[in-house]
Amino acid sequence: MEIKSLVRALSGLLAIVAGFMSLCMVVGLAVGEGMSAFRSFGLSVGIGFGSLAVSIVFLRVKKASLSHRTGYLFVVLAWILSTIIGALPFLINGSIKLFVDAFFETMSGFTTTGASILTDVEVLPASLLLWRSMTHWLGGMGIVVLTVAILPMLGLNGRAVMGAEAPGPQVDKFTPRLSQTAKILWLIYLAMTVILTGLLMLGGMSWLDALTHSFGTMGTGGFSTRNASVGAFSSAYIDIVITVFMLLAGANFSLYWAALRGDFRRVAKDTELRAYLGIFAVASAIIVFDLRRSGVFESAGIAARYAAFQVSSILTTTGYATKDFARWPALSQTVILVTMFIGGCAGSTGGGVKVTRIVTLLKMGQSEMRYLLNPRGVYGVFMDGQYLRKNAIYDIAAMVFLYLVAAFVSMLVVASGGYDIVTSLTATMATLGNIGPGLALVGPTCNFSFMPEYIKWWLSFMMLLGRLEVYTVLVLFTSTFWKR
Amino acid sequence: MEIKSLVRALSGLLAIVAGFMSLCMVVGLAVGEGMSAFRSFGLSVGIGFGSLAVSIVFLRVKKASLSHRTGYLFVVLAWILSTIIGALPFLINGSIKLFVDAFFETMSGFTTTGASILTDVEVLPASLLLWRSMTHWLGGMGIVVLTVAILPMLGLNGRAVMGAEAPGPQVDKFTPRLSQTAKILWLIYLAMTVILTGLLMLGGMSWLDALTHSFGTMGTGGFSTRNASVGAFSSAYIDIVITVFMLLAGANFSLYWAALRGDFRRVAKDTELRAYLGIFAVASAIIVFDLRRSGVFESAGIAARYAAFQVSSILTTTGYATKDFARWPALSQTVILVTMFIGGCAGSTGGGVKVTRIVTLLKMGQSEMRYLLNPRGVYGVFMDGQYLRKNAIYDIAAMVFLYLVAAFVSMLVVASGGYDIVTSLTATMATLGNIGPGLALVGPTCNFSFMPEYIKWWLSFMMLLGRLEVYTVLVLFTSTFWKR
Repeated sequence: MEIKSLVRALSGLLAIVAGFMSLCMVVGLAVGEGMSAFRSFGLSVGIGFGSLAVSIVFLRVKKASLSHRTGYLFVVLAWILSTIIGALPFLINGSIKLFVDAFFETMSGFTTTGASILTDVEVLPASLLLWRSMTHWLGGMGIVVLTVAILPMLGLNGRAVMGAEAPGPQVDKFTPRLSQTAKILWLIYLAMTVILTGLLMLGGMSWLDALTHSFGTMGTGGFSTRNASVGAFSSAYIDIVITVFMLLAGANFSLYWAALRGDFRRVAKDTELRAYLGIFAVASAIIVFDLRRSGVFESAGIAARYAAFQVSSILTTTGYATKDFARWPALSQTVILVTMFIGGCAGSTGGGVKVTRIVTLLKMGQSEMRYLLNPRGVYGVFMDGQYLRKNAIYDIAAMVFLYLVAAFVSMLVVASGGYDIVTSLTATMATLGNIGPGLALVGPTCNFSFMPEYIKWWLSFMMLLGRLEVYTVLVLFTSTFWKR
Repeated sequence: MEIKSLVRALSGLLAIVAGFMSLCMVVGLAVGEGMSAFRSFGLSVGIGFGSLAVSIVFLRVKKASLSHRTGYLFVVLAWILSTIIGALPFLINGSIKLFVDAFFETMSGFTTTGASILTDVEVLPASLLLWRSMTHWLGGMGIVVLTVAILPMLGLNGRAVMGAEAPGPQVDKFTPRLSQTAKILWLIYLAMTVILTGLLMLGGMSWLDALTHSFGTMGTGGFSTRNASVGAFSSAYIDIVITVFMLLAGANFSLYWAALRGDFRRVAKDTELRAYLGIFAVASAIIVFDLRRSGVFESAGIAARYAAFQVSSILTTTGYATKDFARWPALSQTVILVTMFIGGCAGSTGGGVKVTRIVTLLKMGQSEMRYLLNPRGVYGVFMDGQYLRKNAIYDIAAMVFLYLVAAFVSMLVVASGGYDIVTSLTATMATLGNIGPGLALVGPTCNFSFMPEYIKWWLSFMMLLGRLEVYTVLVLFTSTFWKR
């Protein structure tokens, strides 16, 4: 029965999450939080490991694999259940009072959104701050991808499942075995996180600040240990290091694998990477121009430091802030808003529509115009020298359209709370695009705590919809899914 | 040589425009404007008829037809030249001082946008008010379509040309001869205009007000003879009549032809019509709910009158106003903003993306999800029982994407003038969607006169891009077009 495989796979995943939570608990004990850390995490850790034990003892699953359909259900349930057990420590500890708030905060963590309902994060104990940022790190590369890497013995049909979670239209299958690919991705990710943590500590951060900001940066999340986000450290060195690593985290990880094997040509010629860096450069330049003409900063150099940080943060969907960009002049804000609709690269930890999809659709428009001029011609779309099948483009176009429809519906839901257009629009993009901060009432110095419960539930749903790239979630709402 | 056919076709079109301008001149003379009316229109009328005379005398064209490529060039030039000779009367008369303003106003007229740079329209003489609204009427059904209808002897290859201007993905070819189809469309349009004018005069409007508002309504334009737009008449009867006729003008005209032949089944089962009326009903209902809970109007009935008028006006891209909806509560404004992205039906005089494209893309998303659940299945998209070829959907997806890219770029251009996000966004949609008013600084009680020249040129370009549905204009910017 498929249901057995499903339960077994879910229990394995929860045990992995519990494993990471127990790390945070140990850290809490080590820094002297004592029983408090134990109490906060105990229940979730118990549920996670307990469910695996129960499923091993009572469910006999013989290397069964999940069908396509169950694969989608598995991925969505995996994210929801992880969010629930991930939310418990905040509630038990008392740092978050309402279940909806804890759910929102944890979903925001796992989906690498970084939108918060906390008005003061600095009062949280170290163990919870660490866990809060660790959800970014786990969700960034993908908890399901991690499960595929760690537990092939669970008999998970990775092919059905990984596509439903991995970001971007086509994650390069650079090894024949999927669990192998997943392992390589995670190892590169881990190595970069270690390097970044070291660099941040060199810049004077404590181990906790360095580790949490490293998680937030590499996962393109955005949770900080400070209320003023990265701006609290007031260090040009830290700003620059994080700007660079956000950009690295938002690029396609398979390029790093190519670089490690010495294939630098592939990296240099990658269309998406060029477009991504081009967008970063142009958007930063416009903002520097706008900030300078309005006299916001004393020099072009300082303006460039803040503009590059902010564009990198929004484009990669991280969401850190070093200045309150909601107070920047109109053109700068508009550039940031437009950037919110783009997102990182495929195969990165970044969210949003993804650069490759936008490039593909632009090429599609171009080929369509050639066709209009010469209806008897045959015009294909090529990406990195490879012909893209019509079906692949079709898939991308439909995804982008459904994404935008979701955005429009979401704007109406948020506006029903009586919020202005800029708040409704950017609260939607901040969550659906897994970015974090928006503009107006949800600007970088604000948070989402003031919103009514139904909007928090809705926006949590938008985060999941965005992180799983629309299809995986929407598929569950089709009649075809439930029909046998 | 194709250039000869092109010039001949353009001269024919300009003569037609000149014909309509001389009607306005005659009216001006009749109401006692005397030499002033003669001076205002004389030059344009002379240019129009003169160019036809010259081309007949000097150009020998033997029923030559235009290629696809020249067809696009013809349509774009037709619109630009018509706008230029249409703008001269405002300049000569002195009611508009700057050429860019007169160009903006006339482009806004022909494209049925209805955005104005005039701060006081009530001071214009009758002949100019009539001409200003007549541009809506001519542009609504299409000046090129009109040319195809009137001048088949010019040897215009209608098939290459009409598709480049006619609104919507597929204008039903309901007669085998294209000039016949064009004639029928124009006759239905004319008849409805006459009926509406009569109904408005019954409501107490003067002949000039009735005729101009009839032009503005049937062309889904939005220019009024009053500064307070339709609201100036404060008549429930007029509000309701115009609401109904805006909806009629925004529906597919081939349905009226079907109804005239007694094929009511076709009308009743039309998917796009149902979706269009459904959107109208839902959007109006949400606004009524929102207005009532905020206590804006004294009763649900009065709220319904204003809400229905406004939704109809925005959805059909007309742009008339009976209340300053930029002061309505947040949810109502957001509904109006979302409606701006939709537009009328294919084969109507309405602008925007068009309902049928949105329905098609939604169905595309649905079929894509079925395919993801069952990758071996074959799922087609059907519209009104007819299978849509992948190429047709592909074409629609690319158009909608390019439309949105244009919108994003335009937002940045407007924002470069230092205007806030809502102004930048809605000024873009108001022009690209051929609607007219937006929100904030370009709300229904405002106008575009305050903007710098480069933004006025840009927005004029957006109007044309929107009216000709992106491709026709963008094609001229491809290298393929200019390569031989």
